[in-house]
Formats: sequence, structure tokens, C-alpha cells
Amino acid sequence: MRVGVLTGGGDCPGLNAVIRAVVRKGVQEYGYDFIGFRDGWRGPLENDTVPLDIRAVRGILPRGGTILGSSRTNPLKSEDGIRRVKETLVKQEVDALIAIGGEDTLGVAARLSGDYGLRCVGVPKTIDNDLSATDYTFGFDTAVNIATEAIDRLHTTAESHMRVLVVEVMGRHAGWIALHSGLAGGANAILLPEQRFDVDQVCAWVESRFKIRYAPIVVIAEGAMPRDGDAVLKDDTLDSFGHVRLSGVGEWLAKEIEKRTGKEARTTVLGHVQRGGTPSAFDRWLATRFGLHAIDAVRDEDFGKMVALRGTDIIRVPLAEATARIKTVDPSLYAEAEVFFG
Amino acid sequence: MRVGVLTGGGDCPGLNAVIRAVVRKGVQEYGYDFIGFRDGWRGPLENDTVPLDIRAVRGILPRGGTILGSSRTNPLKSEDGIRRVKETLVKQEVDALIAIGGEDTLGVAARLSGDYGLRCVGVPKTIDNDLSATDYTFGFDTAVNIATEAIDRLHTTAESHMRVLVVEVMGRHAGWIALHSGLAGGANAILLPEQRFDVDQVCAWVESRFKIRYAPIVVIAEGAMPRDGDAVLKDDTLDSFGHVRLSGVGEWLAKEIEKRTGKEARTTVLGHVQRGGTPSAFDRWLATRFGLHAIDAVRDEDFGKMVALRGTDIIRVPLAEATARIKTVDPSLYAEAEVFFG
Amino acid sequence: MRVGVLTGGGDCPGLNAVIRAVVRKGVQEYGYDFIGFRDGWRGPLENDTVPLDIRAVRGILPRGGTILGSSRTNPLKSEDGIRRVKETLVKQEVDALIAIGGEDTLGVAARLSGDYGLRCVGVPKTIDNDLSATDYTFGFDTAVNIATEAIDRLHTTAESHMRVLVVEVMGRHAGWIALHSGLAGGANAILLPEQRFDVDQVCAWVESRFKIRYAPIVVIAEGAMPRDGDAVLKDDTLDSFGHVRLSGVGEWLAKEIEKRTGKEARTTVLGHVQRGGTPSAFDRWLATRFGLHAIDAVRDEDFGKMVALRGTDIIRVPLAEATARIKTVDPSLYAEAEVFFG
Amino acid sequence: MRVGVLTGGGDCPGLNAVIRAVVRKGVQEYGYDFIGFRDGWRGPLENDTVPLDIRAVRGILPRGGTILGSSRTNPLKSEDGIRRVKETLVKQEVDALIAIGGEDTLGVAARLSGDYGLRCVGVPKTIDNDLSATDYTFGFDTAVNIATEAIDRLHTTAESHMRVLVVEVMGRHAGWIALHSGLAGGANAILLPEQRFDVDQVCAWVESRFKIRYAPIVVIAEGAMPRDGDAVLKDDTLDSFGHVRLSGVGEWLAKEIEKRTGKEARTTVLGHVQRGGTPSAFDRWLATRFGLHAIDAVRDEDFGKMVALRGTDIIRVPLAEATARIKTVDPSLYAEAEVFFG
Repeated sequence: MRVGVLTGGGDCPGLNAVIRAVVRKGVQEYGYDFIGFRDGWRGPLENDTVPLDIRAVRGILPRGGTILGSSRTNPLKSEDGIRRVKETLVKQEVDALIAIGGEDTLGVAARLSGDYGLRCVGVPKTIDNDLSATDYTFGFDTAVNIATEAIDRLHTTAESHMRVLVVEVMGRHAGWIALHSGLAGGANAILLPEQRFDVDQVCAWVESRFKIRYAPIVVIAEGAMPRDGDAVLKDDTLDSFGHVRLSGVGEWLAKEIEKRTGKEARTTVLGHVQRGGTPSAFDRWLATRFGLHAIDAVRDEDFGKMVALRGTDIIRVPLAEATARIKTVDPSLYAEAEVFFG
Repeated sequence: MRVGVLTGGGDCPGLNAVIRAVVRKGVQEYGYDFIGFRDGWRGPLENDTVPLDIRAVRGILPRGGTILGSSRTNPLKSEDGIRRVKETLVKQEVDALIAIGGEDTLGVAARLSGDYGLRCVGVPKTIDNDLSATDYTFGFDTAVNIATEAIDRLHTTAESHMRVLVVEVMGRHAGWIALHSGLAGGANAILLPEQRFDVDQVCAWVESRFKIRYAPIVVIAEGAMPRDGDAVLKDDTLDSFGHVRLSGVGEWLAKEIEKRTGKEARTTVLGHVQRGGTPSAFDRWLATRFGLHAIDAVRDEDFGKMVALRGTDIIRVPLAEATARIKTVDPSLYAEAEVFFG
Repeated sequence: MRVGVLTGGGDCPGLNAVIRAVVRKGVQEYGYDFIGFRDGWRGPLENDTVPLDIRAVRGILPRGGTILGSSRTNPLKSEDGIRRVKETLVKQEVDALIAIGGEDTLGVAARLSGDYGLRCVGVPKTIDNDLSATDYTFGFDTAVNIATEAIDRLHTTAESHMRVLVVEVMGRHAGWIALHSGLAGGANAILLPEQRFDVDQVCAWVESRFKIRYAPIVVIAEGAMPRDGDAVLKDDTLDSFGHVRLSGVGEWLAKEIEKRTGKEARTTVLGHVQRGGTPSAFDRWLATRFGLHAIDAVRDEDFGKMVALRGTDIIRVPLAEATARIKTVDPSLYAEAEVFFG
Repeated sequence: MRVGVLTGGGDCPGLNAVIRAVVRKGVQEYGYDFIGFRDGWRGPLENDTVPLDIRAVRGILPRGGTILGSSRTNPLKSEDGIRRVKETLVKQEVDALIAIGGEDTLGVAARLSGDYGLRCVGVPKTIDNDLSATDYTFGFDTAVNIATEAIDRLHTTAESHMRVLVVEVMGRHAGWIALHSGLAGGANAILLPEQRFDVDQVCAWVESRFKIRYAPIVVIAEGAMPRDGDAVLKDDTLDSFGHVRLSGVGEWLAKEIEKRTGKEARTTVLGHVQRGGTPSAFDRWLATRFGLHAIDAVRDEDFGKMVALRGTDIIRVPLAEATARIKTVDPSLYAEAEVFFG
């Protein structure tokens, strides 16, 4: 058996831990051969490969990023893409493919698996934790730890100067990182993409905090939106390259707070530091277990599935279901956190 | 409503986060009063209390330890203990009690609740993660992170000198910390209390590692035992005070490895650093949610219960069941890890 | 003897360690009384004080920020400011004043000491490390560690996506943080305020890096300037509040790199996280020693002086000299680093 | 020019940073060739080499340990050792040798350089910071940071249980790590090899601490000795292999404190974690600069010298002087710290 492995989408701490576990168990227990595809689906599309054996995965467990590289290339959007992917797999004599990625990467795997009979097993990866089929995805815990440490640091600077500090964390469509790091960091307001926020309410929380001589920290997901601010935000948040600007909603909010409360406010945008570096112990453990179970699914020829965490168990779910909808923060969970606002 | 709070047993990162959440929600949402009892069950036993209000819990979220102090005092073992506890609760006009602790502390709560009608809600706390009613206990993730960081550091020293490094981690009866930190740290052998180990097998793993010019790391739980080493170990592991010696099974194993393989071996005993300091983001989040749900149970007058984590939900389970048996590492989970040994 | 203490300017890890050392030694060895002034020179100006004794400094050693608060208030710029400061000191029966701060705060101390006979001892504080009279200031090592950790994290994300990552660190007038964190983090280009940079040169370094399949990291001080970019930068870097925008020179450079090389580039602005949180061991040690020597200077009635680090010794230098000019990065030091560029 | 490089003695964070800087500058600026010798002086003794070029040093800056391996092999003690070392150097066409190591490794370099005309440049390395010719050695700052973090963690556990915690840190002959981490961690007693300690005095400090409801932390260097405890200690501290036992003076002291004060005491021995893992930013910077200046010394043919830190400058000192005596903690520095005891 010869197994291909690829990693797609944004990088995420724990990718290398998955790759290592897949290869270690595949080689040692099942006697499989492996081949790595470079840069996600670009690898099979362009027949760009890298050798993958026990030696290649040595020492990579604690390393962030992915030794296979990553990209957002989508063969479904490329002319003749599917034919070229299949051609590569035949040429490379690949019997099964393990695709490690998020919604997009696994969506391709689901299509190739469902419609074209590709023998594919998926491993979920999203730092945003927004895949509905699994309790957690690896990378998320690391990101939350990094954001929480940053909030811890910002508390002292906020209090020394009696300033408002707005911390913008990742999360375009789901506010998991904001919710968890905001709770863990003792934020005085947490703003999510799931629920439009009211700037006056935020200002009220901010002011109630100053009344007891504490300086407020506001944690905001990059995808959070003010109740009526669409027009205002638009120009500010997209740059000439069409990227979301570094100076997004967090900076906008800090200025609004300054205007409305007269208090100094500063913004910190955590950005890419949240997704780099060595994975937390939880993420290494989860990624390793995902890898072990993914190669077991290959051995069981249980294709078209994705491994997932349910409680403390690793289970298998259909790829098609797994990527059907994103998992957002439930209103009841957000309501739980509100006791700490203000 | 006036609610008493106590923390018992070994200290654990996250205790303060529970106390803060209980008080914040209890005061702000339900208008309750609070009183803290000092040093676990010693507080109610000796009527030793400390004021507990919003101001008292400010800034304690990131702090390790417990502002209430802790002890292993057991009122069931003290003459007239139950009468004295009840007397204190009457004197202090306590309507309900939240007990935060492990098997022993919650065992007392279960007895007082079941046999004596005390209105009690439990919050599980054990750094060892060995309570069967909950997926995880807070403190565990912090301990695993600390142990993993230490293993990361030891890899470099092991490899520079081509030595065996034996790392002894916490876990008298259950090997969760050893299993998780061993997997996350890339250990070459993991030894648990749940399964007697064979020193020759360990030596074989160690030697296979040297053959590829890598230096092995062996992670061992303090409660792990060699297959036939009871007599040998006995004298070595208990000191004149009856404490388990610092130089326990880890040091013993390092010497055996030196004798049998001729390779240099060194031991590191992580000890109390595993249970101190600021909690990880996961533990702050879990402890905070436990606190919020514990005060909800009080409001619901749902006494005799313990809060617990099931998947990503906080549920309530009967105190009596919760403490009935310890949760050990399942052999299948241990078997999963074995692919990385040697 | 009654000694006043104040902390001025931007907050900085280690301020509390200085205060603690001053008070512990002052009370225990010399039997002095202390009084804290709130928010730098605003305290004496407005007679705003806070009690300061052994109990007040307990547990503050590892805490970032300052228990006395800080501000940039300058009594020399306030009408009648000097008279009001002197009045407060008489009213509070203060015999000597320890001022902990940077160029501005100590500049005031120098003036009050030189021209008005105030009995004043200074302790240097600048996270930027740009005071000429001392080898290092506390806070700097912490900031460099935080920036280095961030760069470590960004390496993995840069490499997984083959992107350029631009990291903007603190340093308006001196590039010490950029130089040290860039060297420690293995940056492929380091840009300082001391020397205008050539965007084409930066692009050449960036491209030489891609040629060997590595992704480049560019570390840039917030005060660095392109050779010919003044006009271009101006509008982009000041916001409507007159603050330097979050999206400053780093973001500008990332866009230029994208334009000129066609490679994707991203920016991370570390911002306030660099100055918050617990001080590094070096900063705690340095701040503590500064505190011990400052109170010794008071006892010796050696006023008008500032404590400073020279090698491993703490010495005293005249306040007037100490604040005369800022210490910038020597061209020879910068040249040393250039071997790692590209 | 062909330059050999070796690393000897105990491993130390920053070794790889030196090697990288030496090779990067040597190749890029001076066009030199390099060859690595394995495991310190064992390499030249046994002609055991490893290729060393730009590619070999890629990515090693943040990695602990040494890619060249290390040992305590001393060619002066080996029969015919000097002849064999010289033979290897001739055979490998080595024109100059950079030896990175502590007292022993550099002592060999000094002898070979002085008596046998070997063209040798030394780089000082000792985690203990006890080389007299340099203000600091790399590795020391990392060790102090790790020990300080551990002390921070132990404070919370000490206070929750009102126990004494004894922390044993590295330092056989000099107490620098104990002094710096003890000061930075807020220890209530610091015990060094330089000055015999009085157990009753330690107990008095411990008890004065409990009186104000704080739990004491005692930091002790592994080489510290009680005033009259030689006989007592002897049997306890050497094991059957002749190694210093894990359970050394720290554990002995904890027991004495228990006996004399009746308070519970626990010991933590930090051990090898202090010397492993990624170097601190300071150590990466210092090690990098040492490397750059060492290769400059080779280019200047300024042999028989060691690079050293003096203030913020890197200077060169004669190898012979550099290793003549160890640098111990000055009594005046220790006296400074005493204000925090008790």
C-alpha cells in the first residue's frame, strides 16, 4: 500500500504531528510506503512530491507549520483539475490519500471521494475550531493560549495607564478564539462574528470598569461587526490588494471608544503569531491521535471519512457531513460569558 | 441565600478561577452572599472563615493556588466532626456549600450530603485527571503542558550527550499526565501505574534508539512499578518521614538502565512545579465554566451533585457516583501510544 | 526620613520590582517611611498619594506594570507646576524623592534637582534601552524576549506558505529591540531608525531567501524610515487623533515588497504586548538592584544622581548627564548583524 | 583557510547559535571552509568529523544542545593524546580551531595553544557563569529564566499549603544561578557554595515568614554546604555510581527544616531542564556575537585568545588567563540580597 499525504489551507500548529503519526504507524505497524504532496492540492495537481519516510518525520512533532508546505489551490476550480489529480495519483502509484485541512481542503476531498471514487481519508484542521463534526480541532488550543498570554500582558499595561485595550484575535466567521481567550484572559467584553455588537453597550462596559479604577480589555474577533457599522467599516477594512487590512475592526472600535468615552484606547492585532510556533501539549496529543486514527481508517479501507474528536474518543464521520456547515458559538455559551462583562 | 465555598486536597491551577466564577455570577446574577472556609474541611470544622465578595476575587483568575488555602483535613475522621461542621454552617448561616476538591474532599461532601442532608454542590479537582465522571479536570492540562515543556528541553540535553533521560511525572494511581506529556513530548517509552513495566523491554527500547544516533527519553509516572521490583523498590521509595522519596521509581529505573545497557542515564523529577503557577487557557476556561455551573446548581437547589465535563458540555452528576471509582488509562489508549516506543 | 516614590512615562516590566526593593531595604535596613505618588509627576503636582509600606509591596515582584500608576504629566509645562510640586513635598513631609522613569521623567528630576534643590535620586526606565548612561535598562530584556518568541512563531507560518513576514517592533528613535530580537530570532533583514533603509535592498534580501526555499522575516522598528519615503509615509502613519497609526511603516513596507517582488507579504505589529506582563529574570534582577542602590544613594544623601548599570556593577551618574542624549545603535553593531541578512 | 569547530563539556543553550554565527560569517565574509569535530576533544582525538557548511547550520539558532555533540574527553589525560589531536588536524588540513567550552575544554585549548603552537581561538561556555574573564556566559540567562519560572510556580503551591519549598538549582562551585533566580523569584533564603549556611538561621527565616501567613521558598545551589554537615551529607549525596545523587543537599535541608521547625517541607530538584531547550533572547544574542568575534579573531590570526563580554563589548583575552580561576559570587553581592531573606 502506498499512501499520499497533503496539508492544505492556512498553517496550523500540529500539522507536523499528524504527518509524523501517520507515517510512524503506517510504516512500523502496517508496512506502508508514503509520498508527500507539496503545498496542499497543488502537489497532486502539478505532480510535485517530496519523499516521506520515518527519517523525514524525525524531530518534527514540536515544530509548527508543515514540512509539506501548504496552499489554497483548489483543483475543482482549475480547468481539467480533477483529471490531472487522478493522473498524478496513478503515476505515483498512490493507493490512498490522507488530506489534512479545513473546510476547503476537505471539501475537495469530499467531492473527489464522493463523485470520483478517490480513496481518501480526511483529518480536520482549522485554527478557528469551526468544524461542526468534531469537538475540537488542533491548533485552536495553541492559538487560545497565545491570545490569553497576550491578554495577560496587556492587563498590566492597561492598568498602569488607565487605558482601554482592544485586542483583535482571529475568527472571521466563528468567535471561538475570542470567546475562549476572552474568558481565560479575564476580558471585560468579548465581541464575536456570531452576534452584532452595540458600540454604546461596549462603552458602558468600559466605563463601569473605570469606575472601580480598573482598566478594561476588550477582545474582538476579526470578523465581529457593529450593529450599524457596515458602511463605515467597509472602506477601512479592505486594502488595495483586497486583503483584510491589518487595521480592521479592532482599530475602528478603539477609535469609537475614544470618541464616545473620552478615554484613551489602544489596539493590538495578534495576527499570525496565533498560528505559528510549537503546538501546545493538547494540540500535539490531538494531532497525534488524529494521525494514528487516520492511518487506521486507511487500513480498514474506510474511505470518504474524516477522523473527529467526540469527548475523549476519536471517531470517524462521513467527509460530506463533516464539511457541510461551520460550527459557530452557541448563543447560550456566549450568554454564560456575559457575567464577566463590564 | 448565603453560600459557603471551600477548596480541599492538593493545590491545582484553576481553583481561583472556579472561586471567582462562583462569586461573580452568584453576586451579580443571583444576589447571593458568600463566605469562604479556610483550608478545605478544616474551615467548617474549626469555624475558620474568610470574607468572600467581588472585591476578594478580583485579579485572581490567572493566579495558581487557592486564595482560600487547602488541607487534607477529613471531618469524618475527626471525633464529633460532623456535628462541628453542621454547627459552623448554622452559626455562619450558610444555606448551601460548594466544595471544590478531589476524591477525598468530594467523598466527604457526598457523605454529608447523602447521610446528613447537607445542601452541597461539588466541583471536581484533580491534577491527575482520574475522576471517572468527567472527561477532564482542570489543572491537568497545565500539568501536561509543564511536563511537555520539560521533556522538550530534555531532548536537547539527551542528544548532546547521548544519554538516557528518565522523567518522573505525577500520577500515583493513574498515568494520564505521563501518557499525555509522553505523547506530546515525543517520549521513547511511557510507563504508567496501570501496567507493570518490564525493565528489559525498556532497555530494548532505549538501545534501539541509540542505534539511530538518537538519545532516548523515558517518561514514568511516580506510581509506575516494575514487573518484579516490589521488594527492591520498597526501601528506596519511602523516607523516614513516611513520605514518598523524591528519589523514587525514576531514579531507580535510571540506575537499572545504566546497569543493564552500560549507557549513562539521568533522572529528572518534575515534582511540585507541575501543580503551581498560572493555569493554561484550557484550565481557566474549564474552571470558569465549572464555577458558573456550580452556582447554577445551587440556584436550582440541585444538591448532592457535581458538575462535570462531557464533550464540550457541562453536566451534573450525582456526587456519590462521581467519586465511586478512579478513572485509569484504558489499555487500548496505552496501546495506541506504543507505536512511538523505541 | 520620609521618602517619596513615583513612576513616570510608559509602563515597563520591572517597575514594581524597583519599588519593592526600595521599600524593603528602606524600611528594614534604614527605618525610613515611604509615600507613593500616583501617576508619575501628576502625583506631586496634584498631591495625589498612596500609602507605601512593606505590606503594599508584597507579591509585586513578578507583576508587570506599576502599582503607583503612571502618566506623562510634566510639571515644568504646567503653570505654577514647580511651586505646586514643592508645596506637596512640604505638605507630605517628604525628605527625598525617588523618580523612576525615562528621559522625560528624569529630565524633570534633573531640573528640579539642579535648579530648585530638590533632593532627588533617579532610576532609569525605558523599554527602548536608549539611555546613554547605563548599559541596559530594565524592561528591555523582557520586550526582546517577547519579540523573539513572536519571530520564532512567525518563522513556521512564513515557511509553510512561502510568504514574507514583516514584524514591526517598538523603537521610535533607537533600534535596540529590533536589533536584538532580529538577531535572536534569525531575521533576514533588520531595519532601524538609525539608518534609512533602501526598499530595493530589502527586496533583494527577500528574494535571495526564496531562492533557497526559505521564507524571509523582516524585523522593522516602528521608527525606521525608507530612504525616500517621507511623503508617502506621512499620510499613512498618523491617524485623525494624531496618534501613530497601528498600521505604520511595517504595513507600508509589506505592501512595497508585494508590489516589487510579487511575493505575498504580511505584517505583524507587536505593539503593547511588548511592554506588559511579568518581567524576565534579568529585568527582575536589574530592577531589584537598581532599587537597592537607589535607596542607598538616598541614605548617602547623594542626590541629583541616577543609578546605572556598568558591566555587572551598579554605579551612580549625575542626573543631568544621564538624560543629555539618547543612546542609539552604533553603526558597527549594525554592521555585525548584516552577515545574517538575505 | 579551513577552520575546525568543536563543542565540549556539559551542553548549554546557545552552542548552536555560536556554531551558526562562526560558519555564516566565515563562509560569507571570509570564504573559509569548515569542518566539525564530534563530541568535543574526542573528535580530533579519534578523527571523528562531521561536515559543517551553511546548509548544516540552517535553522539551528533556536535549538538547544549542540549539533556537534559534546563530551568531557580530555586529550591531555589520554596517552599520546596530543600527538593524535595534531595528527588529525594535519590530516584534515585544519588551519585553525575554534573550541567552544568551559574551564576544562578551554584549559586543553590553552595548553595546546601555549605549549604546542596550535592555532586556537576559544569561546567561553558555562551555564554556571563562573568564568572570570567574561561578564556573562551564554546559557546562564536561560537557566536563570527556567529556574525563576519554576520558583514562580512553586510560590503558589507553597502558599496554598503553607509549606516550605526547597528548590535545588545548579551550581557546584559558584552560586550565580541560585543568586539570580532567587532574587528574581522572590526567594526567602538563598544558599550558595561560596558561603556555608547555618541551618538554624535558615529555620529562623522560614519561621518569620510563616508568622505573616506566607509560605517560604528556599533556593539552594547544589554545591551549598551546611556549616557543620559534612559527615552527615556525605553518605546521602553520593550514589553507588559515584554520581552526585539527585537527592542531594536540597532534600537533606528540607528534612532538617521539618525536624527543627515542625513545618512540612518539600524539595524540587530542577536538574537537567535548566540546561536544555531553546536559548533565551539574551543568550542567542550573546552566543551569536561570540561566534562572530571568534571568527574575526581567526581572520586576524589572533590565536591563543578567548572572546569575552565586557559591558556591552566583545573583547579578546588570553586563553591562559581566562581559565585561570573560577568566578565566584562576591560577598558584597550576596549581602545585597540578604534584605529579602526571612
